[in-house]
Amino acid sequence: MMTTYNFSAGPGVMPEEVITQIKQEFEKNEQTHMSIIEISHRSKQFQTIVTDAENKLRQLMHISDEYAVVFLQGGGSTQFEMMPLNFATNHHEIAFLDSGNFAQKAVEAARELGNKVTTLNSTKNMYYQKLPLLPDDFDATTYDYLHIVTNNTIEGATFHQNNLPKTTGRLVADMSSNILAEPYHVSDFDAIFAGGQKNLGPAGVTVAIIKKSWLAEQDVTGVGPMMRYQNHIDKNSMYNTSPVFAIYTLNLVLDWVIQQGGVTEMYRRNLEKSKRLYAYLDQSEFYTAPVEARARSLTNIVFTTGDLEKDKVIAKQATEEGLFNLSGHRSVGGFRASLYNAQPMSAVDALIAFLQKVEQQA
Amino acid sequence: MMTTYNFSAGPGVMPEEVITQIKQEFEKNEQTHMSIIEISHRSKQFQTIVTDAENKLRQLMHISDEYAVVFLQGGGSTQFEMMPLNFATNHHEIAFLDSGNFAQKAVEAARELGNKVTTLNSTKNMYYQKLPLLPDDFDATTYDYLHIVTNNTIEGATFHQNNLPKTTGRLVADMSSNILAEPYHVSDFDAIFAGGQKNLGPAGVTVAIIKKSWLAEQDVTGVGPMMRYQNHIDKNSMYNTSPVFAIYTLNLVLDWVIQQGGVTEMYRRNLEKSKRLYAYLDQSEFYTAPVEARARSLTNIVFTTGDLEKDKVIAKQATEEGLFNLSGHRSVGGFRASLYNAQPMSAVDALIAFLQKVEQQA
Repeated sequence: MMTTYNFSAGPGVMPEEVITQIKQEFEKNEQTHMSIIEISHRSKQFQTIVTDAENKLRQLMHISDEYAVVFLQGGGSTQFEMMPLNFATNHHEIAFLDSGNFAQKAVEAARELGNKVTTLNSTKNMYYQKLPLLPDDFDATTYDYLHIVTNNTIEGATFHQNNLPKTTGRLVADMSSNILAEPYHVSDFDAIFAGGQKNLGPAGVTVAIIKKSWLAEQDVTGVGPMMRYQNHIDKNSMYNTSPVFAIYTLNLVLDWVIQQGGVTEMYRRNLEKSKRLYAYLDQSEFYTAPVEARARSLTNIVFTTGDLEKDKVIAKQATEEGLFNLSGHRSVGGFRASLYNAQPMSAVDALIAFLQKVEQQA
Repeated sequence: MMTTYNFSAGPGVMPEEVITQIKQEFEKNEQTHMSIIEISHRSKQFQTIVTDAENKLRQLMHISDEYAVVFLQGGGSTQFEMMPLNFATNHHEIAFLDSGNFAQKAVEAARELGNKVTTLNSTKNMYYQKLPLLPDDFDATTYDYLHIVTNNTIEGATFHQNNLPKTTGRLVADMSSNILAEPYHVSDFDAIFAGGQKNLGPAGVTVAIIKKSWLAEQDVTGVGPMMRYQNHIDKNSMYNTSPVFAIYTLNLVLDWVIQQGGVTEMYRRNLEKSKRLYAYLDQSEFYTAPVEARARSLTNIVFTTGDLEKDKVIAKQATEEGLFNLSGHRSVGGFRASLYNAQPMSAVDALIAFLQKVEQQA
């Protein structure tokens, strides 16, 4: 059987050990009528899973008791609405740094909810290959918060911990595509959220990390119960029926990350994987990795031959050789190799070997 | 190995054939990095699954092209908010029939969103053992819609197709716990929704069936993109990352229902299962099934010895004998045997045998 690798930007590759554990779960419960997707979210079995998952995430990210951790549904897109509904309660104005598609989507959602939105800076005219800087004269006091996207899944630029915008106001981060991939100080943020389907687990669960004292300040009115963080916090992520399978799998993934050595070890591996690929691309005269060096993503490596039609042909050829989902997002084209935590180094080596072969035949 | 049965009210028992198919999916993809939870929601494989699932649901429920069908996240509780946000746009007033806990929750959500809510009738003072009737003088023209819960999962009373309230206005139904369990004429409703975790699949997916012409009349403003049905309809349930595994499993369940003979056959079996259990309970002098005859649920059979402490002891004993999750909802106590589509007749027979044994020993 051909060895295959999956470079999907998400939902994407998961640890093989986790897939095996899921298989065993269904194998064991083929006739019991009590598999993980058949048990009540109020069962002790599931309540233990939720508590374990929260504790493991706290351990991995060093999340203090000053923050609540909740598991929700609806992906990052629902967070684009919950954040304004719960936190844009004073100025009704939110500041954004436009670093790509998902920053723009968050702006749009906040606007549709009736808030004023200010895009402080955008690198759209540079195809988001550089990070937008926080203006020197930024006055945080007139906004409810500043929203950033730490890793731009489509465009490949990242606010790493060492190049985060320095604001004296509240800071909200969408970490959907690089949570647990590199270290961040949670205490630098007032809220963090991440869709599950990259480094955390399958699609269908979203993590939100909320500074309790900030939430306590809010006067949230005219908002439905499901859109209020406080309800989910009060009920330990079981305000209504939780997405049981997604949280079960998330818990297995967190276990795996801990067993592998935690975020420190993930970061070491992700640096090694991405550096090896960028090094190959940078020395190549055939491919270009256009994102500025200091902002390069560890998880979504964007590159191109400069000819989008040629890129498509090569991506198709890659598929035939067992290297799946290398096409860039439909909005930008080119290539995107997603190197999430579960992506083994062997995938990077196989990708480089393939790219070299194509380059030599060109 | 002891034969075990799962009477959970949801998430609950699924068809054994579906559990086997899921096991095989993970078995087959243990090393490919391309299992169902690792593929993109934009992949052809998943797009086919979504289209298939929609077509199968349309086939099973005879849903015409006048209705849109979408797969969402957040469960019925999120629908309690999406319905008012999308449809209470004219009068900002909604009528409810209070038939139990989930009707009350819908009232509360609509109220918190700033709507006027009118509870036309309630059977709360009868412990919801009867259905609330629509008042004869009900004037539908002053409300945006009437909201009902077809099957009351906790209390066990059901608006069957033959005892639906007759309104000249718009009718919205929460069918979370009896969709596909008994036949309804979709054309009698303007919107139907159901959380997945009873008869449709695992927790984490919600089905909404929306009359397109009604939605087209609405002027929806100040609502975020994720809470607008039209966005999900326009993008074929892929407005953002879909809950891939939950929809995959839903599709398997729909396949199974079709193979078994569709809703007609499910209804025949559910009638047979529930009648057998009610018949036993009604002739017993030890147990009582308190719901009025015409409204008795086919899916959630509620009963008690009349002594809630004794009920608890018996439910615990049942667990030891492999009959799981027979306790009533924590808000009401007693017993609740959920007999969803995937519950085999053998489970009912095992339950009756157990109940008889307890009765004889009492």
